[in-house]
Amino acid sequence: MPVTVVGSIAYDSVRTPFGARERMLGGAATHFALAASFFDEVRVVGPVGDDFGDDAYAVLRTRGTVTDDVEHVPGGHTFFWAGEYGYDLNSRDTLETRLGVFEAFEPKLSDGSRAADVVFLANIQPELQRTVREQCADARFVALDSMNLWIDVAREALVSAIASVDCVVLNDAELRQLTGKPNLVQAAREVRSWGPHAVVAKQGEYGAALLTDDRFFALPAYPLETVVDPTGAGDTFAGGFVGYVAAHPTEPVTHELLTRAMAYGTALASYNVEEFGTDRVARLRAEEVTARVAELERITHFVDAPIELRA
Amino acid sequence: MPVTVVGSIAYDSVRTPFGARERMLGGAATHFALAASFFDEVRVVGPVGDDFGDDAYAVLRTRGTVTDDVEHVPGGHTFFWAGEYGYDLNSRDTLETRLGVFEAFEPKLSDGSRAADVVFLANIQPELQRTVREQCADARFVALDSMNLWIDVAREALVSAIASVDCVVLNDAELRQLTGKPNLVQAAREVRSWGPHAVVAKQGEYGAALLTDDRFFALPAYPLETVVDPTGAGDTFAGGFVGYVAAHPTEPVTHELLTRAMAYGTALASYNVEEFGTDRVARLRAEEVTARVAELERITHFVDAPIELRA
Repeated sequence: MPVTVVGSIAYDSVRTPFGARERMLGGAATHFALAASFFDEVRVVGPVGDDFGDDAYAVLRTRGTVTDDVEHVPGGHTFFWAGEYGYDLNSRDTLETRLGVFEAFEPKLSDGSRAADVVFLANIQPELQRTVREQCADARFVALDSMNLWIDVAREALVSAIASVDCVVLNDAELRQLTGKPNLVQAAREVRSWGPHAVVAKQGEYGAALLTDDRFFALPAYPLETVVDPTGAGDTFAGGFVGYVAAHPTEPVTHELLTRAMAYGTALASYNVEEFGTDRVARLRAEEVTARVAELERITHFVDAPIELRA
Repeated sequence: MPVTVVGSIAYDSVRTPFGARERMLGGAATHFALAASFFDEVRVVGPVGDDFGDDAYAVLRTRGTVTDDVEHVPGGHTFFWAGEYGYDLNSRDTLETRLGVFEAFEPKLSDGSRAADVVFLANIQPELQRTVREQCADARFVALDSMNLWIDVAREALVSAIASVDCVVLNDAELRQLTGKPNLVQAAREVRSWGPHAVVAKQGEYGAALLTDDRFFALPAYPLETVVDPTGAGDTFAGGFVGYVAAHPTEPVTHELLTRAMAYGTALASYNVEEFGTDRVARLRAEEVTARVAELERITHFVDAPIELRA
C-alpha cells in the first residue's frame, strides 16, 4: 500500500560552519520520500518549475518513488530556500525564501495518491493539508508536520488540520508555542485532546519523544562525530517513522509499533545530516539503516539491578 | 564505604512562573547529600555561617548524612543565591550571589572524609577541587562538576582538576565551552583525553548522556507534568549517580554500571524538581525511587522487529 506525501520540493542553498552549497535538491517531500521509500512505494505530491531538472527527478525517484503527481508549472520557478546555521548547528537563520510555484499550489491528487494507506502532510499551509486529508478519506494513518509561521498566522486552520489526523510530528518548541503550555506532557495532552492519538516531539540533537494515551517514549539522536548539514533531518525522520507504519499494513498502530518506527526515523535522520542535502540518503543502503537501529537499541538500553536503598 | 562531597551549602531565594520562595536550604552539597544518602553514608564538607540553623542541619542529616566536616565560621554568613526562572524553566537568571563564608573557604577534611571510597567535587573553585582530590588520595571513584564561570576565569586550573578525576559531570553547553568543540562526541573525547574515563553531559529537560571509551548511552529526563523548581536538579542527579557507584564497592566501574547509575540519578532528579528546594527529596521514600527507575527502563526500551527494507 503506497505512502503519499504532500509538501515542498525545493532547491536549497545552505551555509554551515563546515561549508556551503548552492541550489541543492531539497524540500520536505523530497527528504521524506528518500527515507520512506525504504519501506514502501512513495507518491510525491508537490509543484516544481521549469528549473526542475532531470537530475532532480532522478533523485526523487530513488527506490521507485512515483512522481506522477509532481506538478510541473510551466513558466514557474521551483521553491527556493537559503539558510545559514550557527556554530553548533542548533540555530538557523533563513536568508531567503522564494515561494515560486508554491504560491499558487493547490494539491490535486491522482487516484493512486488518494488511495494511499498512509499519508504524510508535510509542512505547508494548513488549509491545503486539510484538503489533502479530505482527498485521502480512506487512509489508515495520517501524520502532519507544521511550523511556527502557521502557528502565528493560521493557528485556527492548523488546529482544524491537526484534528483531522492521527499523529502530529512537531519540534518541541512548536508544540509549546501551539498549545501555550511550556510542559511537554501537558502540551502533548492538549494536542491529543483535539483528535490525534499520537504526538511526536522532535528535539533536534537530543532526539525525539513520543506521547500517546498517557504513555511516553523517548529516543536520543544517534550520536555522531560529524554533522554537516541538519537541513531535512526532521522530514527524513518523518519518512522513516511514517514509512515504518506503512510497512505494517495489518498491524494496529500501537504505542509499541510507533516506538520502533521512531528508531527507524532516528537512524535515517542520522545519515541525512552527515552530508549536504540528499547526498547521503540517496545512496544509503538498507543494511546501514538496520545497523543503526540495532545500535540505537543498544545505546538506550539499561537493565536495572535493584539494590536496597537506605531509609 | 562513605561518600564525601565537597561543595556549597546555601540559602536560595527562587522565583519561578509557579511561585517564589525566600531563603530555602540549598547548595550543591546539600542536594547531592539528600540523593546520595539513599545509597551510602555521606559526609558533607563545606562552610556555613551563624545564620545556619538547626532546621537546616536536620535536613542535611537526612538518612544519616554526617555533618562533622560542615565548618561553622563564626561571624560569617552562609552562601546565598537568588535566581529567577523563565517561562519554560529552561532559562535562569542569577539575581544575586553573596559568597559569605565561601569566599575564604579552604576545605579541611577529617580522617573520616579523607577515607571515602567515592568522592564528589561539586562546583567550587577548581584549585579547591584539586586540593580535596589530593586529600582523598585512595578514593576509588572521584567525580567532578563545574560551571561556565570557572571555564571563563580559571580554565587551566579546571583542566588540571579534571585530569585528576575519574568522571566529569557537566551541562552539555559547558562541555562545548570547555573544549571549544560544538559536537558532544568530540567534546567528550577531548575531556577523556585529559584523564577521566567517563563524561556525563547533563541536558536539562532532555536528560543526560554518558560517554565512556567510545561507548555512548543516553537517558531522557523522567517525563513530568509539573516542574516547580529546577534548582539543584543537576546535583541531585549527581547524588544518585555517584551514590549508586558507592553502593557497589566491589564492582568495577564499567559502562554498564554507569548506565544504571544514570537511571538512579535521573529518577532522583525528577523528584527534586517537583517541589521547591529540598522539600520533595527530603521526604522521599526508597520505593518511590525504585518505581521511577523501573519506569525509566520501560519508557526508553524498544525492541526492533527487523523488516525487509526496499533497495
